[in-house]
Amino acid sequence: MNRTYIKDITTGCRHSISGFVENLRNKRTMAFLVIRDITGKLQVTLEKEKYPELAALVDQLTIHSVVTVEGEVVANEYVKMGGIEMLPDAMTIHSVADALPIKDDSEIDSKMDFRWIDLRREQNHLMLQMQTTLTNSMREFLVNRNFVEIHTPKLIGAASESGSEVFEVKYFDTKAYLAQSPQFYKQMAMASGLDRIFETGPVFRAEKSYTNKHATEFTGFDLEFSYVTSCEEVMHMEEELLAYAFAKVAEKHGEDIKRLFNKEVIVPTVPFPRIKLKDLYAELEAMYGYTVAEDAKGDLTTEAEHLCAKYSMEKYGSEFLFVTDYDAKERAFYHMRDDQGVPMGYDLIWRGCEITTGAVREHRFDVLKKQADEKGLAADVEFYLQFFRYGCPPHGGFGLGIDRLTMLFLGLSIKEAEFLFRGPNRLTP
Amino acid sequence: MNRTYIKDITTGCRHSISGFVENLRNKRTMAFLVIRDITGKLQVTLEKEKYPELAALVDQLTIHSVVTVEGEVVANEYVKMGGIEMLPDAMTIHSVADALPIKDDSEIDSKMDFRWIDLRREQNHLMLQMQTTLTNSMREFLVNRNFVEIHTPKLIGAASESGSEVFEVKYFDTKAYLAQSPQFYKQMAMASGLDRIFETGPVFRAEKSYTNKHATEFTGFDLEFSYVTSCEEVMHMEEELLAYAFAKVAEKHGEDIKRLFNKEVIVPTVPFPRIKLKDLYAELEAMYGYTVAEDAKGDLTTEAEHLCAKYSMEKYGSEFLFVTDYDAKERAFYHMRDDQGVPMGYDLIWRGCEITTGAVREHRFDVLKKQADEKGLAADVEFYLQFFRYGCPPHGGFGLGIDRLTMLFLGLSIKEAEFLFRGPNRLTP
Repeated sequence: MNRTYIKDITTGCRHSISGFVENLRNKRTMAFLVIRDITGKLQVTLEKEKYPELAALVDQLTIHSVVTVEGEVVANEYVKMGGIEMLPDAMTIHSVADALPIKDDSEIDSKMDFRWIDLRREQNHLMLQMQTTLTNSMREFLVNRNFVEIHTPKLIGAASESGSEVFEVKYFDTKAYLAQSPQFYKQMAMASGLDRIFETGPVFRAEKSYTNKHATEFTGFDLEFSYVTSCEEVMHMEEELLAYAFAKVAEKHGEDIKRLFNKEVIVPTVPFPRIKLKDLYAELEAMYGYTVAEDAKGDLTTEAEHLCAKYSMEKYGSEFLFVTDYDAKERAFYHMRDDQGVPMGYDLIWRGCEITTGAVREHRFDVLKKQADEKGLAADVEFYLQFFRYGCPPHGGFGLGIDRLTMLFLGLSIKEAEFLFRGPNRLTP
Repeated sequence: MNRTYIKDITTGCRHSISGFVENLRNKRTMAFLVIRDITGKLQVTLEKEKYPELAALVDQLTIHSVVTVEGEVVANEYVKMGGIEMLPDAMTIHSVADALPIKDDSEIDSKMDFRWIDLRREQNHLMLQMQTTLTNSMREFLVNRNFVEIHTPKLIGAASESGSEVFEVKYFDTKAYLAQSPQFYKQMAMASGLDRIFETGPVFRAEKSYTNKHATEFTGFDLEFSYVTSCEEVMHMEEELLAYAFAKVAEKHGEDIKRLFNKEVIVPTVPFPRIKLKDLYAELEAMYGYTVAEDAKGDLTTEAEHLCAKYSMEKYGSEFLFVTDYDAKERAFYHMRDDQGVPMGYDLIWRGCEITTGAVREHRFDVLKKQADEKGLAADVEFYLQFFRYGCPPHGGFGLGIDRLTMLFLGLSIKEAEFLFRGPNRLTP
């Protein structure tokens, strides 16, 4: 008989369910199993004398063994789990589990060692389901607006941007590097006339960071679009995108996120508040007495970044804050600058954490080359500069980290928010 | 004024269009420009005496320069391009192109050197739009069937499967490798109770192959689902998935693919024909006199693979053919085998080219370990074997190469079908 998902079980019918044995009480005359699948849990109550062959199977079972069970599902007010139970008359054992090496409260590193067992927790299933909804809603939003999906190479011939360190790959008789961002190639797509593009893909950072928000590999969600001439247009695209995707997440998973993580999914209203970095520092000082040295005011300090959570909520009732007008010294050479030399870019802060850097890009070959020269990068990025010599539309874009968004949605560390975390000391499983 | 896509242009109104100068005839009193954006082309006809300032701008233009042009759009029966033209009264030059280093008929390697210019061709825009529809339709199909999207690590601690060569990465004080397939991790997701998962991501193969269908990096589309006990279920999922996605591609791009590539998009009917390898060889011999040595009949020869195009069309009127019952010697150790020792897997052949290997996987730790041992792999895959010790549902799945599908859809080589091709001698741009 066909499998029924546990959430779709109705009483008064026979059903077949498949899942992990989450709980097991094997008494003398009765056995009580809790079976869990991706959709829920059901109690299975076996009268052992009536079905001795099933009783023999149950004797083999252990916690997290995997079974298919068939039987009548009936109402029973004494059953805590939804007031229903299955009275089984057939069972198949697919897999008998060895004694589990971790528990729900094991240390994080043990959990990472046995991540596939840790991922079985209801919270982790929800995390990946939520991420699926988030990513696919963003794609849907973009495809409906004529964005084209591309897959840029991760193996590259030259280290892509300075700053972050890159991993070196042995490539036949030469060397390659792992792309630390699709930045250069998504701009190449603009020079290709693709007009609007996005990409979801891995991003590699050879940084020995051991914070709770850094990983050596994570999933980036990047986009770029043409004929953009103001930072405002880029910010507007991003706030519309996030409002759309957050609404989908709230609708589909809001209640479960509240129940399992005690976190509200707040669907933001558009526009998000915007503030210039200089004005933000003035506000943080006036409201919270936060001061910072003048020469540090060209960039957002980590403490100021955290304070944004409080500030944007108190001042604007918003979890989000666009911060603009950084100092050119602190920004990438490829950000376009306005007449005053201010980069036409922004950071987006959500819940006190930077989730995006976005900008209008410099598409004029001469200006771009000059800006690369200023940062001493012109030789390193020679191949990239060529993209702008044979005609290139003005354009802008931004990138998001899927794992970081997930982390902030659910209040997790990055280790907990990735399917399999990769860090300087972590390459397994 | 807001930009209008060229396909949406209507006569009798003012419009602003943005795009590349595809063609340029700058005469004494008149200038004729063809502007192309991602949606189409429009003739722009300038009366130079009436707008001397625009005439001066046009004098600066070169082929593939990028402009925004505004003006009234009118009907003109003498204009070949749709019988309409724009009479411009304003123009902005965004980017002046240097003389182009390649032409439409340049050698493939020159085109690869300047891929961003080559990608501007209408065919290549269509190729990436078609790929976007294909991939996103497949995701939509799966999300609607409770599949969860995952992102498995590409940096791995041990070479994943034997057979294909893997790239080695310098990873701080140790070594990592680039995943040549998400196979092991998508199975890990089954052990995690995620029930049904898919992934789109890069796949790396350190093979010195110079054929027109091999690349060192390409985009894989992989899925895996639980409680599968027959090869039939896996094949059925795949044929339904492809029929759905092909219908979307035909609907959205069928006409353009016919016009620009002279290829029909044939939406397949389900079920696709299925044949055992042994029976296929008998048929190929009977119908085409194709013979092969007995000891080569455990696998599909390249010639037999090509012949499948003709055979499946003549016999079943189908471009697709599932071939089952390969010899266990020729298949991966993780394919489940039936009572006769025959792997419960298949290859899917489309237009004479293998596009998938699918199978029911062996989820029983002891059997799996024995099968790994037989192939001398047990030590290499020790970390993977652990996934099956603590409970794992039966499962199956398959993988597709997005680039290979694109290639076959449009009749291209792999170099032409990737956004940026990577091969043993090709790491740039």
